Amino acid sequence: MSTQTAYVPSYALDEWWTPAAGTAGTEVYDASNGQTLGQVSATGLDIKAMIHHARTVGQAGLSALSLHERALILKQLALYLGEHRAVLDELNLRTGATKKDGFVDIDGGIGVLFTFSSKGRRELPNSNVIEEGPVEVLSKDGSFQGTHVFTALPGVAVQINAFNFPVWGMLEKFAPSFIAGVPTIVKPATPTGYLTEACVRLMIESGLLPAGSLQLISGSARDVLDHLDYRDMVAFTGSGSTANQLAKHSNVTEGGVRFTAETDSLNAAILGPDATEDTPEFKAFIRSVSTEVTAKAGQKCTAVRRVLVPAGFRDAVVGALAATFDERTRAGDPHAEGTTMGPLASMDQLRDVRGAVGRLVAAGGTLAYGDPELQDAVTQQGHEAASGAFMSPVVLTWDDPEAPEVHSVEAFGPVTSVIEYQDVNDAVRLAAMGGGSLVATVCSHDPAVVVALTRGIAAHHGRVHVLDRDDAKTSTGHGSPMPHLIHGGPGRAGGGEELGGTRAILHHMSRTALQGSPNMLTAITGVWHAGAHQQLAGDPAFGGSPQNVHPFRKSLAELRLGDGFVSGLRQVSREEIQAFADTTGDTFYAHTQEAAAEANPFFPGIVAHGYLLVSWAAGLFVEPAPGPVLANYGLESLRFITPVAAGDSIRVTLTAKKITPRVTDEYGEVAWDAVLHNQNGELVANYDVLTLVEKENVTYKNW
Amino acid sequence: MSTQTAYVPSYALDEWWTPAAGTAGTEVYDASNGQTLGQVSATGLDIKAMIHHARTVGQAGLSALSLHERALILKQLALYLGEHRAVLDELNLRTGATKKDGFVDIDGGIGVLFTFSSKGRRELPNSNVIEEGPVEVLSKDGSFQGTHVFTALPGVAVQINAFNFPVWGMLEKFAPSFIAGVPTIVKPATPTGYLTEACVRLMIESGLLPAGSLQLISGSARDVLDHLDYRDMVAFTGSGSTANQLAKHSNVTEGGVRFTAETDSLNAAILGPDATEDTPEFKAFIRSVSTEVTAKAGQKCTAVRRVLVPAGFRDAVVGALAATFDERTRAGDPHAEGTTMGPLASMDQLRDVRGAVGRLVAAGGTLAYGDPELQDAVTQQGHEAASGAFMSPVVLTWDDPEAPEVHSVEAFGPVTSVIEYQDVNDAVRLAAMGGGSLVATVCSHDPAVVVALTRGIAAHHGRVHVLDRDDAKTSTGHGSPMPHLIHGGPGRAGGGEELGGTRAILHHMSRTALQGSPNMLTAITGVWHAGAHQQLAGDPAFGGSPQNVHPFRKSLAELRLGDGFVSGLRQVSREEIQAFADTTGDTFYAHTQEAAAEANPFFPGIVAHGYLLVSWAAGLFVEPAPGPVLANYGLESLRFITPVAAGDSIRVTLTAKKITPRVTDEYGEVAWDAVLHNQNGELVANYDVLTLVEKENVTYKNW
Repeated sequence: MSTQTAYVPSYALDEWWTPAAGTAGTEVYDASNGQTLGQVSATGLDIKAMIHHARTVGQAGLSALSLHERALILKQLALYLGEHRAVLDELNLRTGATKKDGFVDIDGGIGVLFTFSSKGRRELPNSNVIEEGPVEVLSKDGSFQGTHVFTALPGVAVQINAFNFPVWGMLEKFAPSFIAGVPTIVKPATPTGYLTEACVRLMIESGLLPAGSLQLISGSARDVLDHLDYRDMVAFTGSGSTANQLAKHSNVTEGGVRFTAETDSLNAAILGPDATEDTPEFKAFIRSVSTEVTAKAGQKCTAVRRVLVPAGFRDAVVGALAATFDERTRAGDPHAEGTTMGPLASMDQLRDVRGAVGRLVAAGGTLAYGDPELQDAVTQQGHEAASGAFMSPVVLTWDDPEAPEVHSVEAFGPVTSVIEYQDVNDAVRLAAMGGGSLVATVCSHDPAVVVALTRGIAAHHGRVHVLDRDDAKTSTGHGSPMPHLIHGGPGRAGGGEELGGTRAILHHMSRTALQGSPNMLTAITGVWHAGAHQQLAGDPAFGGSPQNVHPFRKSLAELRLGDGFVSGLRQVSREEIQAFADTTGDTFYAHTQEAAAEANPFFPGIVAHGYLLVSWAAGLFVEPAPGPVLANYGLESLRFITPVAAGDSIRVTLTAKKITPRVTDEYGEVAWDAVLHNQNGELVANYDVLTLVEKENVTYKNW
Repeated sequence: MSTQTAYVPSYALDEWWTPAAGTAGTEVYDASNGQTLGQVSATGLDIKAMIHHARTVGQAGLSALSLHERALILKQLALYLGEHRAVLDELNLRTGATKKDGFVDIDGGIGVLFTFSSKGRRELPNSNVIEEGPVEVLSKDGSFQGTHVFTALPGVAVQINAFNFPVWGMLEKFAPSFIAGVPTIVKPATPTGYLTEACVRLMIESGLLPAGSLQLISGSARDVLDHLDYRDMVAFTGSGSTANQLAKHSNVTEGGVRFTAETDSLNAAILGPDATEDTPEFKAFIRSVSTEVTAKAGQKCTAVRRVLVPAGFRDAVVGALAATFDERTRAGDPHAEGTTMGPLASMDQLRDVRGAVGRLVAAGGTLAYGDPELQDAVTQQGHEAASGAFMSPVVLTWDDPEAPEVHSVEAFGPVTSVIEYQDVNDAVRLAAMGGGSLVATVCSHDPAVVVALTRGIAAHHGRVHVLDRDDAKTSTGHGSPMPHLIHGGPGRAGGGEELGGTRAILHHMSRTALQGSPNMLTAITGVWHAGAHQQLAGDPAFGGSPQNVHPFRKSLAELRLGDGFVSGLRQVSREEIQAFADTTGDTFYAHTQEAAAEANPFFPGIVAHGYLLVSWAAGLFVEPAPGPVLANYGLESLRFITPVAAGDSIRVTLTAKKITPRVTDEYGEVAWDAVLHNQNGELVANYDVLTLVEKENVTYKNW
């Protein structure tokens, strides 16, 4: 937040905006001492104009770049934020988060940018159309084919975030939207929006973002849905009740706005019957649960609210949790040395959590550890503890594991409940009583228990975290969504799906089926389709032309889809098969023993090795002299179709199929469609040959 | 429909059910002559009990089978329906559909079963857990990894269908649900539900379906949503207004029921500026549009409602359409010889369509062909034409291409509008004014036009059908959803996605992120993960044990995930590299010319061919004697990491990774994880070796 103004600014139409002086706003406070930090109001902000700006200027700027170019900008942005993070670290403490909590929020957010940048460039093409296979041949002659493409949503992504992760919450939604090519309007939660604003300010100051690709609403965005339609999406994180309000909007139910929600849920941690007190699993379980109760003072939608333990394990688990809290947990001002748990985000939150604990106790929960009214806190000079929203960890136990409240009433603070289950089926049933959750931990070293629990609860959870002695030290934890894996869950968890690597990028795009001739599919997708035009060098008997240059002599600047090479036939003899067996050591009977080979249901008798065929094919298509093709780094989807016996011949056709110049190197990837035929024109094998090719012929220019 | 009862029966709790005698029902009619066929009522049907039955008995029966087993049942079902189709063909004519229309509905529906059966077995594992890669290594030492799995939704799929495709509409929803393992409750549209009932009766009589896997509601299912939650899904096809009603239900907006809708839309066909009257494209375009107007009397949600032609082309297009209708279209009783277009499904439908044409004319449309009031029809003896819902094709033209009504008012009959566009951008804009459509045809032979139009409209459409001279003869048509490709569309088209091959199966499953150690991920997914336990035969220096049998000696009955073989080191010499170059012909400079190889940015000097490495690896891991491993049919995801120079050595580790016994053969697929290391333990290459292995050691038992 800028210190010059009492209002937290918005960023609209590529300019900073604050309400007219005197506009009534919502006060925001330093959570650790209750001091006023400023006001928030969006009164007078033209949200309709912001949406129009995103759809026009934002879309134009983003679509002028490719997926890889946008992904690279995210990496540069991550580096910039890392360099300028001091302002974020300072504001983080004011939100009530400890330095360690801030690591999850700020470093976690920057980490999402790095991961998406890297996955976007590694796993997606360097264009704006993503083809999704398999290609479907819809006519016998191959002249009519089908495939699918992803293209960016033609509207805006409105991202509404919760108060608990003001930086990560924004960046994890912004990153996939940006790579996909969809402009963002971010609307943070008011209590901690000043930290989001500080991060947006850095992002704008970096100068890396195209105009219109990021806007910020500081304050209420209540009417935003009134202006959206099927071109747009809303990604919401927050309370279930707000999510329900938004989901009911006619622009969602009738207008086709893509709406996705992530709401907090009553996540379970399940201790396996094998994980008795003396096992490494028991220890890992206690560490995991105690961390989830206290991190961010339990204000995490992924926190463990229900601890499911085998019948008879309750006292041991509660005792171990109590000992851990006594030893490790020091609630207090995040500015103070020794603080391991900050206050709740506001006094309102504290009131809510105490109320929820009261309801749980009234429904049969017993206070087994902690006191929701206790407010002793480590303080720092100049910070007034009593005015902060401090609270101790609280553990409840329940005699009735089926009490509806333990599965439905959420205390969004350092509060958890311990219940007992009878057997694995009972544990599955109890976990599912949460009505859909973001995550569950299954803690056991018995594969049978893990399989039964995990398969049983999978469809009720967005993520299952399996904890045992093998990963106890390396696990990233129950509560931490990873950018590589989906985050979200069914039912009460909101039904949405975020993150998950490139899945999140695709959620910001439209999938469209395409039907047409190979030439047209090639033109639209930027991927060569079998049957489309080829410009072949090589043997004229099979369609090659002496006028065409061998495609290995072309740099990426010259190479075009469909450029290729066709060889002549090469006959294979029994002696050559035997020699290949002898030199490679691959003396498999199908290549060496006639009678046994004949008995095989797939072979006519002795056949050439598949590895011989692809090795020979390389010999047939290669252009051996130094040139722009630098290396063959791999091979994809090799299938052997018709066996090749002694006396048969093979030929190869190689065609440039995908061309992916890198944005960070002087070369790129070229995937070549390789097809082997025999002397009768029958299909022997097909595969993709993966090569690295220079953008310009540099390395061997004067060779 | 059974002829014994005046009511179309429902099928609930594995029994046929009809309402109590005297229950008031909705009358249904023969569309071609208006005669009463029976009554429909679900009054008294216990829908809550049906849902419970599906969730319990249905889920249990389906989950006792694997994905492949369920897929195979669909093939058997398709064969059974094909043999017993006569009753369907007869009832088809009563719905007003011609024999040709019935081909789309009945044969199309059976075809969906075949396609899903085949794709389910070819593209999915033979289990009940589908792993979705890539596997994400989340800790440096590989002890903590992440992946995703799909498991069946734990509830019921309620499938609500439209009147126009009573067989296909049911089967295209039932097939993916059944393979996924989710029980179906189907609710057909009342006017033609008797044909659906007849098909369900055949399916039940086949004896192929597990108890509870298919139930039928003949009549209103108005309260069905009251009993569903996040475990369940509703797949709806029909009018936008009904879809909106359902989408607003609190069990959708709050309860997390997966709701997907496919509603009819104002689909466009766009003629490219290059497709002048003398081109094959013009001819193909006229044929396509005229077919879409008259097939099923235009009662298709995919029908062409908006014909977009270049400025100046309008008269030529209207003239050609008129000539085609005059020549080919004979509206009449489907029972009569010579009928090419049947009546609308009911007199109510006829009234609706005439009303819509009236609104279009009032809004500026001009009747350029046909008369909505005209009811001349080919009749058959015993059928009374005047009482059927006959109508002639109607073409409207518009002077104002932006009139809102042409883009929003749908006449769900043989009615289309022709409008002109100025340039390609204008055509994109006009097509998008439909507010989201199921499908558009782009007709042009100019790749630049096709690319601009297709990329421009893709995000507004579920499917784009590109028509030109190359696929005009082989295209399956604008209006025909193919089981391989997705069907649905954004915005007005309902926002849903059906079909699309295995995508549709996955839409009936939950995606869950999994985190854990390699051993636990292996146990849960049924796929071996790198780092998990191995039982290796082979060289003790690298972890092999003489007690372990070579895995190539094990049939599927004996082979376990993690069974493998590790070889010793084999050193490669400069002479062997040269000899490989000489025999294969692969004399690429990196293998033959020291100075040039050294100049290459990736190589230290001359290196061994990648093909040499994989060929030698096969020699190192092979067990040459005849046994249960029948063939190496391919290779996946080969990547070369560390180059191998003369003097270096390689060794290979081969581990059983995926085991897929076929349900139809005495063998199955085994994918082996292959890893090459050099003498320093560095990773040289990794890939999957694909083999066919016998279930029992049969072929070479006594060899």
